[in-house]
Amino acid sequence: MRLLIRDAHVVTLDPALPVLTPGYVVVEDGRIAAITADLPAGPFDETIDGSGQALMPGLVNAHTHAAMTLLRGYADDMELMPWLQEKIWPIEACISDDDVYWGSLLGIAEMLLGGVTTFCDMYYAFERTAEACRDSGIRAVLSGVLLGFLDSAAEDLRRACEFARQWHGQAGGRIQVMLGPHAPYTCPDPLLREVMAGARELGIGLHIHVAETVAEVTGSEQSTGLTPVLHLERLGLFEVHPVLAAHCVHLSPEEMDILARRRVGIAHCPGSNMKLASGVAPVPELLKREALVGLGTDGCASNNNLDVLEEARLAALLHKVHLGSPTVVPADTALWLATRGGALALGLDDLGQITPGFRADLVLVDLQQPHLVPLHHLVSHLVYAARAGDVRTVLVDGQVVVRDRQLCCVDLPRVMAECSRRAQEIVEGKRPKRR
Amino acid sequence: MRLLIRDAHVVTLDPALPVLTPGYVVVEDGRIAAITADLPAGPFDETIDGSGQALMPGLVNAHTHAAMTLLRGYADDMELMPWLQEKIWPIEACISDDDVYWGSLLGIAEMLLGGVTTFCDMYYAFERTAEACRDSGIRAVLSGVLLGFLDSAAEDLRRACEFARQWHGQAGGRIQVMLGPHAPYTCPDPLLREVMAGARELGIGLHIHVAETVAEVTGSEQSTGLTPVLHLERLGLFEVHPVLAAHCVHLSPEEMDILARRRVGIAHCPGSNMKLASGVAPVPELLKREALVGLGTDGCASNNNLDVLEEARLAALLHKVHLGSPTVVPADTALWLATRGGALALGLDDLGQITPGFRADLVLVDLQQPHLVPLHHLVSHLVYAARAGDVRTVLVDGQVVVRDRQLCCVDLPRVMAECSRRAQEIVEGKRPKRR
Repeated sequence: MRLLIRDAHVVTLDPALPVLTPGYVVVEDGRIAAITADLPAGPFDETIDGSGQALMPGLVNAHTHAAMTLLRGYADDMELMPWLQEKIWPIEACISDDDVYWGSLLGIAEMLLGGVTTFCDMYYAFERTAEACRDSGIRAVLSGVLLGFLDSAAEDLRRACEFARQWHGQAGGRIQVMLGPHAPYTCPDPLLREVMAGARELGIGLHIHVAETVAEVTGSEQSTGLTPVLHLERLGLFEVHPVLAAHCVHLSPEEMDILARRRVGIAHCPGSNMKLASGVAPVPELLKREALVGLGTDGCASNNNLDVLEEARLAALLHKVHLGSPTVVPADTALWLATRGGALALGLDDLGQITPGFRADLVLVDLQQPHLVPLHHLVSHLVYAARAGDVRTVLVDGQVVVRDRQLCCVDLPRVMAECSRRAQEIVEGKRPKRR
Repeated sequence: MRLLIRDAHVVTLDPALPVLTPGYVVVEDGRIAAITADLPAGPFDETIDGSGQALMPGLVNAHTHAAMTLLRGYADDMELMPWLQEKIWPIEACISDDDVYWGSLLGIAEMLLGGVTTFCDMYYAFERTAEACRDSGIRAVLSGVLLGFLDSAAEDLRRACEFARQWHGQAGGRIQVMLGPHAPYTCPDPLLREVMAGARELGIGLHIHVAETVAEVTGSEQSTGLTPVLHLERLGLFEVHPVLAAHCVHLSPEEMDILARRRVGIAHCPGSNMKLASGVAPVPELLKREALVGLGTDGCASNNNLDVLEEARLAALLHKVHLGSPTVVPADTALWLATRGGALALGLDDLGQITPGFRADLVLVDLQQPHLVPLHHLVSHLVYAARAGDVRTVLVDGQVVVRDRQLCCVDLPRVMAECSRRAQEIVEGKRPKRR
C-alpha cells in the first residue's frame, strides 16, 4: 500500500524541516516513506489532495477516561469533593460494561473527528474500550484503573495483567497496554510494589495520577513524610518505563528534576485543571528541564470535551497569563506538546513527527475557513485560531479513518443514539450498582 | 413577516423562564412575539425546524477591531511593546480604507457563522466597516479610534462626529455609533472633554480601553495622580451613557464600585488578556456588584479568532483556576456574559434575551454532534463543549443571515480571496504608509 498526500502545507514537528509548503508526503505500509518539495514518482494506490490544507502529525491525548463521555455535563461548577462523592462516583458505579463500550466509542468518534489519533486511557471495563479501539481504527494506550481501597484490588490487578497479556500489541500494534494504579493516595505502597512487579514482568508501562491537587500533596506529606513524586521515587516506581504521570500540577523543583531525569511522561491537562481549579502545572519549568510533556483532556466530566487542539490553545494562553509573560509556551511549543511531546510521554518514540520511518498518523486541517484567513503563519493558526471541526482527513498507521469529515469505521448516528439512551438510563437509576 | 422556530431546546437567558424544551418561538417584525411550550397558531410566513438544536440569543462581541483579521497570526508570542511598536503599528499604518472594508467583512463572516449577532468595534476607516455591516446583516456598535498624539486628532474627532450623524441608527437601526477615544493614556484630558461634549451633543456613547495593563495603571498614577478609572471619574466621563470600557483588568475595589454605580459597560476579553499576559480581570467581584459585564474577543492580532463561545469558555475556566474555586463563573453566568451581559454593556437593553418584545437576534446550535452527546445539561454544553462551528442558523432582527451554516448576504469565497490577496500585499510593503 503506497499512498501520496500532495500539495499540503506540511507542519512536520521535525526540527530538521519544520514546515514545507507545498509539500508531498509518501506513506508506505503504515509509515512515512518520504517528504519532498516536488511531486514524487508514482505509482500510488491512493492520492489525497492536500491543497488548501495543513498536514500535521496526529494529535495525542495523553490522559483521558474516554467512556466518561456518558457523563458529559452531568455535574459542573462544584467543589471537587462533593462533585466526586455526591455526583461522579455514585453514577460511575452504575455504568455497565456495555455502556463503557459505547461511551468509549463516542469519545473515540469525537477524538478522531478532531484529529486525535492516539489516546491514553484509564478506566473500568478496559476490555470494552479495547474493543472500541479495535473497531474504530484509533491508536490507544489503555489501562484499567486500580484502586487500593476496593476489596477487589488484588483481583483487579490480576485482571489488568491478564488484559495486558491479551491486548498489548493487538490491532496491528495500535493497542498498547499499561497498568493503571489510580494515584499514590489511592494505592498503598504494597499494591504499588505489586503493580511495579507486574509491569516489569509484562514489559509494559504505568499510568498514574500524580500531584493533581494541593490536598493530595498535603495528604502525601502527612501519610508518607514526602510529596507525591518523592514518595514514588523512593518506591522505585519511576524505574519502570514508560510511566505516564497525569496532571503533575504541584511540584517542587527537586520533583521536576526527578521527572525529567527519569524520563517520566507528564500529561498536562490545562482544561481540567482550570475547570476543577486544581492549579497551574509548571510546564515552562518542566520544558526547561527537557521533561517529556504531552497534553491530556482528562475525562468529559471535567472538561467537557476531548478536543486536543483546544488543550494546545489553553496551554499557550494559561501559562502566559499565569507567569505574566506573553513569550512562554509559544505556538510551536504548544503544537509540540499536542503531538510529539505526547508521543514521547507515552513512550511511542516513532510517533508524533512527519519524518521518514515514523508511523503515518496524519491529520489534514481545512484552511479554507474564514477564521483561518489570511495565512501569515501556519503554526499560529493551528494553535490560536483553528477548531477541531476544521479537521478534514485523518490517517492512523496509514489507514484513512476520517475522510472529508466522515468517520470510515464508526456508525456515528448509532453511537450517538446508543449513548443518549444509555446515559438517560444511567441517570434514571436503571442500572444496578456494581461497586 | 411572521416566523416560527419550532421544537428547539430554548435557552432564553430570561430569569423568569430559563429553559424550555421543546419550545416554540414566534418572531414578528424583527422582534420576539411569543415563546410557548405548545405549537402556536399560524399562519407563518416561514417555519424553521429547531429539533435537535439549541436556540439561544445571539452572542455579543463587546470589544473587537474586526478589520484586524488581516493581521491574524502576523505576530504572536512577543512582549507587548515590541509587538505593538515593531509589528502591529507599522503594518496597521499601511492598511487602506478598502482593506478595512474587506477585513471587516471577513471578521463579520467569521462572527455570524459562529453565532455572533452584535459586535462593538473600534478602528480606522470606520465608514468602511459600517458599509460591511450594512451589507452583511450583522448588528454593530461602531467607533473610530481617536488618538491624542496624532497631529490629526482634532480632524479625526470632527470626522468621527460626522460619521455618527450619518450612520447612527442606520440599516434599520442595526448600526449604532459611539465615539472612540482610544484610552486615557493616549487621549489627554482636553481631547477627552471634547469627546464627552461631542457624545452628549450627538446623544451617543463612548468606547474606550481602560486599565488593560499594569503599566497603564502605573503610568496613570504618575501622570494624573490617579488610577485610570478614578481619573476618568474625576473628568466626568462616566456621566456619558453608555460608556463601553474594554478590558478593565486592573481595578481597585473603589474603581469597581464606580464602574458598577455608573452603569459602565465592561468588555472582559479573557483570550486577549491571557495571550498578551495582561492579567486577570476581577469579573466575579464585578458581578457581585451587579456591574454590566460582557465578553470581547479583542482584535485578531491578539486572540486570534472572533469566537465568543470560546471567550465564554475561557471566562468560565480562567476565573476558576485564578481564584482556586471551581464554583465561580458557572456555565449560566458565562453564557449570560456572552449574551445578555454584552447587550446591557452596550446599552442595548432590548437585546440578549428570548423575551417577548426583545429584538429577534437568535442562534440555533446543532446538538447532533458527538461532542454534544449525551444531553445532560444544555447550558453546560453550550459553554463547556460546543464550538462556533456547531452554529447552524442565525437571525438578526428576525432576518435569517446564516442558514444551514451558509452566509445569506456575504460572498464568502470572494471575501476570503480578497483578504488573502490584500494581506499579502500589505506585508509585502505594497501599500503606502498613511499615518
